[in-house]
Amino acid sequence: MTHAREMLDTYPGTVALDAATLVECIEACFDCEQSCIACADADLGEEEVKLMRRCITMCLNCSEVCATTGRILSRQTEFEPAMARAALQACVEACRLCAEECEYHAREMHMEHCRVCAESCRRCERACSDALSALGARE
Amino acid sequence: MTHAREMLDTYPGTVALDAATLVECIEACFDCEQSCIACADADLGEEEVKLMRRCITMCLNCSEVCATTGRILSRQTEFEPAMARAALQACVEACRLCAEECEYHAREMHMEHCRVCAESCRRCERACSDALSALGARE
Amino acid sequence: MTHAREMLDTYPGTVALDAATLVECIEACFDCEQSCIACADADLGEEEVKLMRRCITMCLNCSEVCATTGRILSRQTEFEPAMARAALQACVEACRLCAEECEYHAREMHMEHCRVCAESCRRCERACSDALSALGARE
Amino acid sequence: MTHAREMLDTYPGTVALDAATLVECIEACFDCEQSCIACADADLGEEEVKLMRRCITMCLNCSEVCATTGRILSRQTEFEPAMARAALQACVEACRLCAEECEYHAREMHMEHCRVCAESCRRCERACSDALSALGARE
Repeated sequence: MTHAREMLDTYPGTVALDAATLVECIEACFDCEQSCIACADADLGEEEVKLMRRCITMCLNCSEVCATTGRILSRQTEFEPAMARAALQACVEACRLCAEECEYHAREMHMEHCRVCAESCRRCERACSDALSALGARE
Repeated sequence: MTHAREMLDTYPGTVALDAATLVECIEACFDCEQSCIACADADLGEEEVKLMRRCITMCLNCSEVCATTGRILSRQTEFEPAMARAALQACVEACRLCAEECEYHAREMHMEHCRVCAESCRRCERACSDALSALGARE
Repeated sequence: MTHAREMLDTYPGTVALDAATLVECIEACFDCEQSCIACADADLGEEEVKLMRRCITMCLNCSEVCATTGRILSRQTEFEPAMARAALQACVEACRLCAEECEYHAREMHMEHCRVCAESCRRCERACSDALSALGARE
Repeated sequence: MTHAREMLDTYPGTVALDAATLVECIEACFDCEQSCIACADADLGEEEVKLMRRCITMCLNCSEVCATTGRILSRQTEFEPAMARAALQACVEACRLCAEECEYHAREMHMEHCRVCAESCRRCERACSDALSALGARE
């Protein structure tokens, strides 16, 4: 349960994008911020931590990008499509890179936290792609 | 829907706190990070933006503290109770100050985004207090 | 005075980019994170706060993007050029948009904090462009 | 070189604290945000990464708290001493815990990045303590 939808519905002006697309994107970004922090931490707790180095770095970077994108999308006053587009493009890339790494560890090493984190990254990648389409992005 | 519970359940080691208390605290922190960003932005979109200055500052500060606390609580490897306690205490204070300001605008100026944001802040304040109690904090 | 150069010089592995380019980019990002927070706050303190709305939003967004980019560039273990490139491209865009807005207020309304913040944004835009070139970015 | 002093000097209102104390605190916070990110990353690049787990967690947590404190102190409009005090207290604790861990690795394992990071943490701990004193904190 989050308050993202209610916050958008009580915004005093006009919202830049379709509300359902926007709320899904915002919620996916903040969820992915958290999953990636938790996955980097779980990686660090693994016996074979040396094998998890790339996963830790991808997760930490992805977490930051998701937080930033979620915040930028949460701002509707003087919404600037060029800014949203640049953030969303970086976020799609961060989520894709992180998901690929996590999926590898889920598949090859049966790491359950990586399986869950990859799910969260793929959801966020999809939500950001949908928001980009809604923005009319030239990709 | 967030992945916080699943991330905690797949953590490869022992978790520092009762899982339900921890998950509620983590989810409340990331939700409040978002609500406060959105409320500061809604304040900025109001006709009477001058009257919203304190609300904007409280919301921006509260959003940062919630994000930081949510991230610290999401890390279970080498969990340090003194660090968690310090973050949670700051978060209780940030949420209390922000909730009081938002409740004032909800009551006196009928601002719906402030009403929703205050709800999110009070939930987070409560969740952080509960986590502090679970940690055996000396307050 | 920052510790960025010393931190890079004591990194135990090989660094991805030319050290001077990297340190300038990291320092410019964290400096711009701070300038933009301070400029959004100064805007909020202005008598004519309604005229500063776009500047506040651009500054808050730019601050987040700079922090994220500075953090991603600060990580050398399993450095991923595609991630760095995506973050740097978003940062160039955020800094350009914010600098243009701040330069307008500096020129038309003689706002000194906007003049200083624009300087910081232009420095960061340049440092990120240089880092992109050093990475061999396909732009 | 940062723009923190110039940003403060061009603030349109009255500043809450002695300017030199405030600027040193803000600069120390953003510098420590960066040093801690870089130190966690250098730890991850070490051969004996398992021995660095606590250092990585302390550094990541300290980095977040420093960023948040630096941002809160950068906001002078509707400055709230109770908020500043809570953030500064958490920051003193985060910097102390991180410095102790880094000093241990610098002393026992001759890790140069930990020596530099500990310096940055101790500077920030001191700057936050000085800002607390200037605020008239009841500790």
